Amino acid sequence: MKFVYSFEEGNKDMRELLGGKGANLAEMTNLGLPVPRGFTITTEACNNYYQNNQNIDNNIINEIMQNITKLEQKTGKKFGSDTKPLLISVRSGSRASMPGMMDTILNLGINDQVATSLIKLTNNPRFVCDSYRRFIEMYADVVDGLDRNEFEKILSEIKEKKQAQFDTDLDANAMFEVTMRFKALYKKLKGKNFPQDPKIQLIEAVAAVFKSWNNERAEVYRKMNNIPHDWGTAVNIQEMVYGNYGNTSGTGVAFTRNPANGENKLYGEYLINAQGEDVVAGIRTPQSIDTLKSIMPNIYVQFESVAKTLEKHYKDMQDMEFTIENGHLFMLQTRNGKRTAHAALKIAVDMVNEGLITKEEALLKVDPNTLDQLLHKTFDDEELKKLHPCTTGLAASPGAGTGKIYFNAEDISKAKQRGEETLLIRQETSPEDITGMKDANGILTVHGGMTSHAAVVARGMGKCCVCGCTNITVNEKDKTLTLPNGKTLHEGDYMSIDGTTGCVYDTQIKTKEATVSGDFETFMNWADSVKKLEVRTNADTPKDAEVAKKFGAKGIGLCRTEHMFFDKDRIFNFRMMITAPDLEKRKLALSKILPYQRNDFEKLFETMNNLPVVIRYLDPPLHEFLPKKDEEIKELALSLNMEYQELKERIEALKEFNPMMGHRGCRLSITYPEIAVMQTQAVIEAAINVTKRGINAKPEIMIPLIGDAKELKYIKNIICTTANEIIKQSGVNIKYLVGTMIEIPRAVLIADELAKNADFFSFGTNDLTQLTYGFSRDDSSKFLKDYYAKRIFEKDPFATIDEEGVGRLVELGVTLGKKGNPNIELGICGEHAGDADSIALCHKIGLNYVSCSPYRVPTARLAAAIAAIREHNNK
Amino acid sequence: MKFVYSFEEGNKDMRELLGGKGANLAEMTNLGLPVPRGFTITTEACNNYYQNNQNIDNNIINEIMQNITKLEQKTGKKFGSDTKPLLISVRSGSRASMPGMMDTILNLGINDQVATSLIKLTNNPRFVCDSYRRFIEMYADVVDGLDRNEFEKILSEIKEKKQAQFDTDLDANAMFEVTMRFKALYKKLKGKNFPQDPKIQLIEAVAAVFKSWNNERAEVYRKMNNIPHDWGTAVNIQEMVYGNYGNTSGTGVAFTRNPANGENKLYGEYLINAQGEDVVAGIRTPQSIDTLKSIMPNIYVQFESVAKTLEKHYKDMQDMEFTIENGHLFMLQTRNGKRTAHAALKIAVDMVNEGLITKEEALLKVDPNTLDQLLHKTFDDEELKKLHPCTTGLAASPGAGTGKIYFNAEDISKAKQRGEETLLIRQETSPEDITGMKDANGILTVHGGMTSHAAVVARGMGKCCVCGCTNITVNEKDKTLTLPNGKTLHEGDYMSIDGTTGCVYDTQIKTKEATVSGDFETFMNWADSVKKLEVRTNADTPKDAEVAKKFGAKGIGLCRTEHMFFDKDRIFNFRMMITAPDLEKRKLALSKILPYQRNDFEKLFETMNNLPVVIRYLDPPLHEFLPKKDEEIKELALSLNMEYQELKERIEALKEFNPMMGHRGCRLSITYPEIAVMQTQAVIEAAINVTKRGINAKPEIMIPLIGDAKELKYIKNIICTTANEIIKQSGVNIKYLVGTMIEIPRAVLIADELAKNADFFSFGTNDLTQLTYGFSRDDSSKFLKDYYAKRIFEKDPFATIDEEGVGRLVELGVTLGKKGNPNIELGICGEHAGDADSIALCHKIGLNYVSCSPYRVPTARLAAAIAAIREHNNK
Repeated sequence: MKFVYSFEEGNKDMRELLGGKGANLAEMTNLGLPVPRGFTITTEACNNYYQNNQNIDNNIINEIMQNITKLEQKTGKKFGSDTKPLLISVRSGSRASMPGMMDTILNLGINDQVATSLIKLTNNPRFVCDSYRRFIEMYADVVDGLDRNEFEKILSEIKEKKQAQFDTDLDANAMFEVTMRFKALYKKLKGKNFPQDPKIQLIEAVAAVFKSWNNERAEVYRKMNNIPHDWGTAVNIQEMVYGNYGNTSGTGVAFTRNPANGENKLYGEYLINAQGEDVVAGIRTPQSIDTLKSIMPNIYVQFESVAKTLEKHYKDMQDMEFTIENGHLFMLQTRNGKRTAHAALKIAVDMVNEGLITKEEALLKVDPNTLDQLLHKTFDDEELKKLHPCTTGLAASPGAGTGKIYFNAEDISKAKQRGEETLLIRQETSPEDITGMKDANGILTVHGGMTSHAAVVARGMGKCCVCGCTNITVNEKDKTLTLPNGKTLHEGDYMSIDGTTGCVYDTQIKTKEATVSGDFETFMNWADSVKKLEVRTNADTPKDAEVAKKFGAKGIGLCRTEHMFFDKDRIFNFRMMITAPDLEKRKLALSKILPYQRNDFEKLFETMNNLPVVIRYLDPPLHEFLPKKDEEIKELALSLNMEYQELKERIEALKEFNPMMGHRGCRLSITYPEIAVMQTQAVIEAAINVTKRGINAKPEIMIPLIGDAKELKYIKNIICTTANEIIKQSGVNIKYLVGTMIEIPRAVLIADELAKNADFFSFGTNDLTQLTYGFSRDDSSKFLKDYYAKRIFEKDPFATIDEEGVGRLVELGVTLGKKGNPNIELGICGEHAGDADSIALCHKIGLNYVSCSPYRVPTARLAAAIAAIREHNNK
Repeated sequence: MKFVYSFEEGNKDMRELLGGKGANLAEMTNLGLPVPRGFTITTEACNNYYQNNQNIDNNIINEIMQNITKLEQKTGKKFGSDTKPLLISVRSGSRASMPGMMDTILNLGINDQVATSLIKLTNNPRFVCDSYRRFIEMYADVVDGLDRNEFEKILSEIKEKKQAQFDTDLDANAMFEVTMRFKALYKKLKGKNFPQDPKIQLIEAVAAVFKSWNNERAEVYRKMNNIPHDWGTAVNIQEMVYGNYGNTSGTGVAFTRNPANGENKLYGEYLINAQGEDVVAGIRTPQSIDTLKSIMPNIYVQFESVAKTLEKHYKDMQDMEFTIENGHLFMLQTRNGKRTAHAALKIAVDMVNEGLITKEEALLKVDPNTLDQLLHKTFDDEELKKLHPCTTGLAASPGAGTGKIYFNAEDISKAKQRGEETLLIRQETSPEDITGMKDANGILTVHGGMTSHAAVVARGMGKCCVCGCTNITVNEKDKTLTLPNGKTLHEGDYMSIDGTTGCVYDTQIKTKEATVSGDFETFMNWADSVKKLEVRTNADTPKDAEVAKKFGAKGIGLCRTEHMFFDKDRIFNFRMMITAPDLEKRKLALSKILPYQRNDFEKLFETMNNLPVVIRYLDPPLHEFLPKKDEEIKELALSLNMEYQELKERIEALKEFNPMMGHRGCRLSITYPEIAVMQTQAVIEAAINVTKRGINAKPEIMIPLIGDAKELKYIKNIICTTANEIIKQSGVNIKYLVGTMIEIPRAVLIADELAKNADFFSFGTNDLTQLTYGFSRDDSSKFLKDYYAKRIFEKDPFATIDEEGVGRLVELGVTLGKKGNPNIELGICGEHAGDADSIALCHKIGLNYVSCSPYRVPTARLAAAIAAIREHNNK
């Protein structure tokens, strides 16, 4: 096995083996661009290092040294030589970009003797000492883990002594002193002299870079960005070029286009007489790349041409590092540049217009998951830069929210009437909090995961929400919130939450409104022209439906009828229905709910004229709706003509040990068929009423929680009997579909049988994930954090479909479903339907549509398009 | 399609089509036995009747009438004739025996004219009038649904008037009067004359029998006996023979052997001058069959010979109906007789000894599910006959228990000290009730299903238990229990429960001890010689293990380590472990638990010398173990050096919304690896200690609730590292296996991956059923009753494996498991492992062993043998 590749041997498609940086250095080399010569030690070598108990194998060391020899031949310099010494840089570079996460060592190969001969050779003692002191500090930090601040302190002391503002103000003597003191400090801290053997320096440095793959910040970064822990990093070894050679030298970074707004113009900054790290470290304020035009016009023209070449070659905006050594330009890195969602969109559309890329290529350039950034409020960038989050939780629903904190829905509503901006703070939310959630600018909860009540409802509302913020303490009674640092906030204090990042701030922050440009429309139309999946929305109100339609939803894929019961007057009747002691009283209560439901459905049908509306019948366990307060129970008892004690016992009896697996979904209609009858009346009568007004209603009735063929038959029979009777009597021709959710593992196993009685399946992957894993979504966030910490899980299975388990079930359900009914319509309506990776899986499995919350509709459209393009490209 | 078969056309293997009675009448006809001639209308005709909106198709009517014509030709009589009239009987007969559940009409074909001519023909007016009045009453009841009591009242009046004790004491005139008044009553009740057209009588009677398939008692019977509702009943039409012809006539029922104790001797009873229904109705006291020997010696000899012929032919004990008409014997029915478990065993063993059947045939003759009747106390039969249950619940753990009722474990224990016999009454049980459960004679709970805590623990203890008795109200605080009839019982009142039937009585009932005869041993050895499945037991204590070994268990398939924490001193340390605020305190608590666990394991290894012992690591959610009472929390806080309030909050924080899908099983060891370390120490050190004493310990460590390959690797690594280190230090050679439960649907889907790291799989079908259906086992009994009532479910999926869903998953798990590890050992340890049907499935799927509670071990051995025999027979 070959562990080392010279740049001439590599190319840009070898990033798995050479890392991103190595692959692109090879590519640039082969494009004939000015790249310092060098080679790459592969990611396999890194994995070998870890398998080998963190030792570099002798074979690998030999291969490295052979390549050093080749590099010596190419450069005419010699590693450790006292005549024409070769210095090198040692840089990490993994498959995915992990900026600043791993370590770099520059100027390696220098020692006392080499320094002396370099001074002779260059006649630039300041440059040599500057290089040496930089090397000592980096080496001490990276290889030996010594405290960098100790070295910086010395530099500061000497700068103060010499009254120098910047390190560039220090002359050769001063730099010499720095170097000597660094060496002494190293000896003091480490207990031995600074290593003089370049080969030892090199091997130790390579090992240190391998090791840095597993440093804490790299681990956290990978987890945040879903980068697998077993990829490993490559190491790039290059002949040094010196930006610190003097005032005709410098170093910088630049983008081929503006990464913030997408403008087609070089964007970047550089420092004269500096090495790479100085730009990042912010020791001096770098200059805008524009100024290079006047300072070094030739270099600027050359750089601009290189940038154009790279952009054309990579067909993407590039993020480049460069060094100017004594009037010569060298390229140290290029990669596809990170950009805001806004910039990504503009660049993609511009590049198509410039003829640089096709529409399909443009679609692949925007991360679907970032799209809803464009649709939500954000914090003011400048203000945000100055702040640190006081804690973080789960980024449950995107957007930025700021306001005075309140601890219950009632207080929120009162504050709103006073004209205040508010945030709702809760242990967890329940249906009773809905009004408060509507009125607040955002929601912060201590418990609950990505599919908790707060998260689901907030996403539906397009309201920002941070969930599962378990390291704050909320006392709802005292109306206080205690931060991890011990600070306690009270009702009325300001906080801010960012539902896109999960960050929480204990202060007010200015927000700015979302702006969607014309590019958005153009771009999304391209997406629609290639995607095969239809995108519907989860919407329970005409307002949600309206928003989703604006974002391109082609129907409602999930209307949760229980959400229609949350209003105050409605819930009372609903509670009467649940607790009714006999059929007659239950029917009475249902008859009071019927007009509300019918009216709601009419509005939905009107909003969604000509588009399908999937209506899911009552799903959650009944006790979720029950009153908790004594006074409410008393009022209810009065209306039901029941004794208070009797009602209280009935409410008690409805409690369940595991409500998620309890009396809910279609099981309610098995016990109380009259519920399904009422809901069918509401749906069909609404359809008839709007049809009379010229609307084309397309109701699709969906039965939740089906697990058995006879169960489906029983309920379908109730629905069809009721519906057909009403239709017959009305004389209006109404077409309706009846389908089922597939959210119980058993439903998958018997999907062929179910399909014979279903017009459509909608995979409810929230519940399916719960039951397939046996993870209660309300409880699992507590223990899953240990799964992430111990690297057992890399992703949240409630956020992205678990392809290996749940995905297999969905696939089996599709195969069996089509076997049972070749014309069956197949969709998904869990939270996964708004996640790009999951949508790709849905496309692959062959679903007809996905249905997500309104603000995820553009994400879903783009993700569907990308999945179609990738499939086509792979053929 | 042919809907009617003459007896000559049928045989005993056609019971699906002809029903049991029809098939056996055909068989007896073809054996040359004296059977009244006739034909059978098939079960398909019944199903056709239901599909046809409860109408008999004209084609079927024609076929029936053609067969009547054939019958007329064979008998030389004519239906409705006034010279030689044919009367017939119309009897139901389904595939499975459903004694007395459906309807029968005798003497059909009689009308005023026929009666007159019959009197002429027979010169026996009493017999004719007796037949006519019987027909009117049966017809009025069965066809028209009129109240039979109204007719019986008239008969009583006339008997009183004539001072007759029995109906046989009435003379021809009196019978004539009865007949006339019956006709008048019919007209009064029905508003029209009694139908005179024999064809109408016949078709109405056939329809009525079809209809009786769905009467309430038949439905209940089918549900209790797991008979599918869609089988339908056949109808048998036969020439009448008359047991009511006079004193040389009679009718009776008999068994070829004693159905109560199995003695090989005719057993039965008969009535002189009576028709079939009289024996059942108990109008007169029937005589023992023995007396027939002296009264009609020829008939007795003939009957004895027929009985022998039938037993030999059917190779089973027969339950026969016969009629003697004027000195001639006629056989009206034969079928395999029902018998007690005790008789079944004796008959099976005797028949092998008599050379009548093979051992394999003998094994098939005993229902495995009845075997544990032999191992448990039962109620005194005589006392039980006089009583009605006051309510019923789930038959959760077999046996009979009687005693004074108490409402908590403490009161039970106090009562026991006073020498009282007790029953524990609870809403539901929890680990804290264990001592009370041990001390009581039985357990009755309001909530919970077949796999609830009470049920599982009771079965493990061999203690009788009735669960899910939802129509009684228990007030634990007031210590009262209210029955469905409103009667309230108090602490100290007597009750009795039958865990084999689910019956509950509000009085004391004498019980008798179990007796196991020598036949049992012989029979079970036959079972072992043919079965392929190994049978292990679920046992948590040496006592359980001892019992199970006595019943033939070949190892422990499931030791639930959490059950070892229930003792009072142990649970305190366990609670300390759970609530410990930091690792150090948790380790301290664990170190106190270690000696207990080690000691327990040593005892188990000793009891199970040379046999495998599967030890499952901690499984249930931690909060199940937490103290609820304030004083307990205070005591615990003191030991942990925590504030009371802090501990209370910690306990509160451990509560979960859906604990079954929460922080439990292997998830506990992901968070707290030190638990797995301690348990491994205990297992391995115990194995070392007993090995030093010459015991051959075979520990198999089982990890519960695995759902991911990395999760398994992580925990297996902890176990193996700990175990190997201890073994190495001890110098004792200990072999141990590490395996996993398969109880999460996802584990099935990735079983190939899991198998690579598992020595064995044990299917935990309780949890697998919960998650596959999404049925919380603690909550589902509440709503599943509606599923049974509406015929959506026929069986309890927690009692018998759902073959279509859960069964498929188990099969997939086996296939994938063997793919990943061809040597993997496969078992099942859910409650299903003690259910005969489920064991048959386990055999079919190819598991290596089943593990059930001690008292189900014989059931499992026999069920396994039967499965092996059936498989062999089907080849």
